[in-house]
Amino acid sequence: MTDRYFDNFAIGDRFVTAGVTLTESAIIDFALRFDPQPFHIDAEAAKQSNYGGLIASGFQTLALGFRMVLETGVFRACSMGSPGFDELRWLKPVRPGDTLHTELEVVEKAPSRSKPDRGILRLKIWIKNQKGEDVITFTSMHLARRRG
Amino acid sequence: MTDRYFDNFAIGDRFVTAGVTLTESAIIDFALRFDPQPFHIDAEAAKQSNYGGLIASGFQTLALGFRMVLETGVFRACSMGSPGFDELRWLKPVRPGDTLHTELEVVEKAPSRSKPDRGILRLKIWIKNQKGEDVITFTSMHLARRRG
Repeated sequence: MTDRYFDNFAIGDRFVTAGVTLTESAIIDFALRFDPQPFHIDAEAAKQSNYGGLIASGFQTLALGFRMVLETGVFRACSMGSPGFDELRWLKPVRPGDTLHTELEVVEKAPSRSKPDRGILRLKIWIKNQKGEDVITFTSMHLARRRG
Repeated sequence: MTDRYFDNFAIGDRFVTAGVTLTESAIIDFALRFDPQPFHIDAEAAKQSNYGGLIASGFQTLALGFRMVLETGVFRACSMGSPGFDELRWLKPVRPGDTLHTELEVVEKAPSRSKPDRGILRLKIWIKNQKGEDVITFTSMHLARRRG
């Protein structure tokens, strides 16, 4: 993939990532470290929970969804990190065996007023499961280096 | 700690967590799996980046900050997951050796209209470093089981 910089992105550009399958062991392993709630680590307790079975930590789903964005290489040359994101919604539980991918669209871009080497991209992000259902949606800001 | 349910939380309740220190190896290990950008995994490339050195993935800082919230036990009895969060801002880089803790405040509560067993708590969350600087702020929603 050719290197992309702030200047190469246009409003309306869309990207679709490859997928990743969450296994039960990956779910429990992550949750033991970062989110040890019964419905993330205990398959038996999870059956009795409001989710009816084990589900992935939303932080894992979010991080994996973003990992798949990085894998596209779209931001490899230009990424300078993120100031934050907005309106994150966990819409569907992610269960062992689910396969996720991410879709993103550039919805705003603005050159930095104070730093001529960068701009801010605002992205709308959908993390989806194998049925095409949204499991997470949010809007994300990214600092992107300008060309040259 | 006594079990807390939706009914036990009041607007203005504040909680402060214990701390956790991020090591360089924890930063690189997480980022290799979830956020393999040069300023998170390559100490030499990171020196040349806009951060001037290795920094933690914001997804790691976020997940650890929330892990410390779970450690308090405040939500142990009542947590039913989260519908999402808003206005997340990564305000300061987190560097190897930094020690984080989380502070939270209940800013809204509302019983569910459709499900009598639960309510929604809205929390303002500050993840802070050892200097007391905010590294992340956001507002989070939590489904909380009602007593009985």
